[in-house]
Amino acid sequence: MSERVAPDQVRIVACVGAGVIGGGWVAYFLARGFTVRAWDPAPAAEARLRGLVDAAWPALTELGLAPGASVDRLTVAPDLAAAVAEADVVQESAPEQLDLKRSLLAAIDAATPEHVVVASSTSGFGMTEMAVEARTPHRLVVAHPFNPPYLIPLVEVVGGEKTAADVVTWTAAFLRHIGKSVITMDREVPGFIANRLQEALWREALHMVANGEATVEQIDASITDGPGLRWAFHGPMLTFHLAGGPGGMARMLDHFGPSLLSPWTRLAAPELTPALRERVVRGCADEAGSRSVADLVRERDRALVDLLRVLGKVH
Amino acid sequence: MSERVAPDQVRIVACVGAGVIGGGWVAYFLARGFTVRAWDPAPAAEARLRGLVDAAWPALTELGLAPGASVDRLTVAPDLAAAVAEADVVQESAPEQLDLKRSLLAAIDAATPEHVVVASSTSGFGMTEMAVEARTPHRLVVAHPFNPPYLIPLVEVVGGEKTAADVVTWTAAFLRHIGKSVITMDREVPGFIANRLQEALWREALHMVANGEATVEQIDASITDGPGLRWAFHGPMLTFHLAGGPGGMARMLDHFGPSLLSPWTRLAAPELTPALRERVVRGCADEAGSRSVADLVRERDRALVDLLRVLGKVH
Repeated sequence: MSERVAPDQVRIVACVGAGVIGGGWVAYFLARGFTVRAWDPAPAAEARLRGLVDAAWPALTELGLAPGASVDRLTVAPDLAAAVAEADVVQESAPEQLDLKRSLLAAIDAATPEHVVVASSTSGFGMTEMAVEARTPHRLVVAHPFNPPYLIPLVEVVGGEKTAADVVTWTAAFLRHIGKSVITMDREVPGFIANRLQEALWREALHMVANGEATVEQIDASITDGPGLRWAFHGPMLTFHLAGGPGGMARMLDHFGPSLLSPWTRLAAPELTPALRERVVRGCADEAGSRSVADLVRERDRALVDLLRVLGKVH
Repeated sequence: MSERVAPDQVRIVACVGAGVIGGGWVAYFLARGFTVRAWDPAPAAEARLRGLVDAAWPALTELGLAPGASVDRLTVAPDLAAAVAEADVVQESAPEQLDLKRSLLAAIDAATPEHVVVASSTSGFGMTEMAVEARTPHRLVVAHPFNPPYLIPLVEVVGGEKTAADVVTWTAAFLRHIGKSVITMDREVPGFIANRLQEALWREALHMVANGEATVEQIDASITDGPGLRWAFHGPMLTFHLAGGPGGMARMLDHFGPSLLSPWTRLAAPELTPALRERVVRGCADEAGSRSVADLVRERDRALVDLLRVLGKVH
């Protein structure tokens, strides 16, 4: 039996499903110099996939291609077996339907040599529920990217109950090796992390639109000209760490904590227990590391000046 | 009785309260060439304020100062009356406590000539509840900025029940004239728009930390390396408009709509009625204007390449 290649020795990637997400993965793997074998059962899938890759290529070229990277390294396989036969890793990006994911992952599992990791781009299902029909679920793992996968660095990696720990480790190492920003979760939470946060915001936005409290355009402007500018470089936690002034997150929680009880958003707030307060304050301190609040303010202002300029938002 | 100056004829701005937000306003008004009279009852307020302005000045200089702009145009007044006596507009930025806001706004109202607009930086109170002690509430209005006010463009403008319509109009015109991105709301909603969205995300993040589902650092990375990069230029609505591929928001709602019923986030989802679907789809079409999804994808990729480079996120 063959052994799994080292994460930095992958040469051939199979991409199963070639829509917006799958096609984005294909473009990214090609730009990093891999040979890519894609398969998608949809009619005219090849023309659409090549169109997606062509659209992504200028941005990828501008950011820098790996030596030898070429769109000529893409083959569209006639069937699933041909796509995965020689692959060092498989990335599945089928539509978000549980039954379809289950049967497709079982088919991939049956066709792919057992030492090869099979990763799913699912945006919310857990591998435990998706792997029920697979015979060798230990090498099935979630690797959830963000649109467009060829430019957004984040990938969330999380295994199911039957996923082997070394498969999670291998997947994270492989993705980091090719330039991705990887978050490894040690438990399955529906929607993972980023989509839960994004979805909370999105649901509140839908409530506002439904109630006539804000228009679609106002909602978008309220983010792009406000908090969204900060979130490109400081997350929500570090952002509030700065809102507290020199006292940081501790002062922020003590000053604005009571607003958790206010009817801002329709999401019920968690109780701000001393344990939660401590965890958040300590987490911010860990993340800030040696950077004082003043350092972070300078970092923020530098980034905001650059963003406002590059986005043409300077009046 | 004097008349209100035109929005583009303001020369003197009074800033009441000079903490992180008030000080940020002072820096911004100075950079736009105004004479600023500030007042804050805290001990050593002047030294702290001048420190805040000095810290903001390099960024403001880099973005471009208005002719004649100078930190020398700042006076710290000995009392409230001296600060507001000759002001063309007043910006209040006191701590977020309702009783304090009520009595301070009443004091500002009593000391300021009646033709002058008095705006509050409150991050969540409505002017209706804040203006209860004021004698001339028709010229009191909310103008809610985002930290830091000298760099983040967004200001949410909304009146209370007794605010005159022309005061809302004047405030929006003044802020737009000085380079702000203004959202005018025609009704009071607790937390306005951006803070409700931000707070929904923040509450879900606190739930995840409280449950041990994610660390503070993972939450921040999940935003800064993921959706946060997109939100600096395309809001949540337009982002999902692109997630649907060429079919846009309509396809997105039909494909991912069912996930509204999934336990992603602890915020209950609104029912996706045909009316809500129509409102969201039409809103996206309005916002996109003549830009096709393909145009928006090119715009997004251009912005992402620029952001990744300027933020040093290219591998």
